[in-house]
Amino acid sequence: MNTDTPALKLYDLDISGNCHKVRLLLSMLGLAHERIRVDAPGGESLTAGFRRLNPRGQIPVLVDGDTVIWDSMAILVYLARRYGDDRWLPTAALAEARVMQWLAVSENELLYGLARARATLRLGRDFDLAQCRRDAAPGLAAMQARLDGHAWLAADHPTIADLACYPYVALAGEGDVSLEPYPAVRAWLERVEGLPGWVPLRE
Amino acid sequence: MNTDTPALKLYDLDISGNCHKVRLLLSMLGLAHERIRVDAPGGESLTAGFRRLNPRGQIPVLVDGDTVIWDSMAILVYLARRYGDDRWLPTAALAEARVMQWLAVSENELLYGLARARATLRLGRDFDLAQCRRDAAPGLAAMQARLDGHAWLAADHPTIADLACYPYVALAGEGDVSLEPYPAVRAWLERVEGLPGWVPLRE
Repeated sequence: MNTDTPALKLYDLDISGNCHKVRLLLSMLGLAHERIRVDAPGGESLTAGFRRLNPRGQIPVLVDGDTVIWDSMAILVYLARRYGDDRWLPTAALAEARVMQWLAVSENELLYGLARARATLRLGRDFDLAQCRRDAAPGLAAMQARLDGHAWLAADHPTIADLACYPYVALAGEGDVSLEPYPAVRAWLERVEGLPGWVPLRE
Repeated sequence: MNTDTPALKLYDLDISGNCHKVRLLLSMLGLAHERIRVDAPGGESLTAGFRRLNPRGQIPVLVDGDTVIWDSMAILVYLARRYGDDRWLPTAALAEARVMQWLAVSENELLYGLARARATLRLGRDFDLAQCRRDAAPGLAAMQARLDGHAWLAADHPTIADLACYPYVALAGEGDVSLEPYPAVRAWLERVEGLPGWVPLRE
């Protein structure tokens, strides 16, 4: 690959936890890529032009040559299968399903609970904070139950499940959601941050 | 398999769209299974006993011998990989990612938009209906854009993406969300209902 003109382009925003998931995996896989900033809070992802890339009008979007993939979960699956080994995303039925369980938590409790609480308090959005906290709690409790005795969410090693769940849990405080009741989750955050190739949200 | 004592048990409720996703795939794969009714609206999925099966306190839960899998998306992935062929869930990176894009829509716009609107109007829950409609719209628009010219969501044949997206779109009217603006989505609902092994929500 000619790293001067990387084939991978990520439509991206530095404060987006969903984009951070993808940047973490790109970094951990050592994949050169171009970042294209999209002012999503300013409406740039809702333009007709951007919707040709992603009909949902959201970041992140990954472009790999002629291929366009939208949605952070789908991008993680694509990158792990295309460029990773099967430790990041196993192929065996049960092992893959274990990863999917936590991808589902990342798309539900963590996104509608934690990310929306943060968006309300820090990004000027207007979601129901009490509802956000109700939505977040079962996901954090499930993570605490799993991580109290296991180092990683879906296997005995890191998978894309850990990367998908990490950003909005790490940002829980920005939504005034305390992680005090979840000590195993806090210890896991530190483990994720110690992985080779980990990069912070804002670089 | 001895169909008198099926190895597969589904913790289930007939009115649950998330359970319907799983019943559709079980039926289309021809898998004998026992259905165990859980009164989730009455709180039965929130008991300590049920949380030993699923720490999130939700249905559906699939038990396959000694294996317990929670979350409808994870169960679809498990069943497709374990008992299906790769038409239901491809293994190639891009083809799998295309399925994941629509599984993400099913977990986001369709669940937080359509399912919550229905739960509010029909099941006594108390979500913000205006927010539900805002959440649903980009998902339905993305489906309309895809299905206007393609028969199925993620491939040129049905995949678990179609089964994951079907139930809450079929139930959109119960949340007073009109599908009038989405004619290709309405035609696709009929195609899903014509698949061999399709079963209605309530049997």
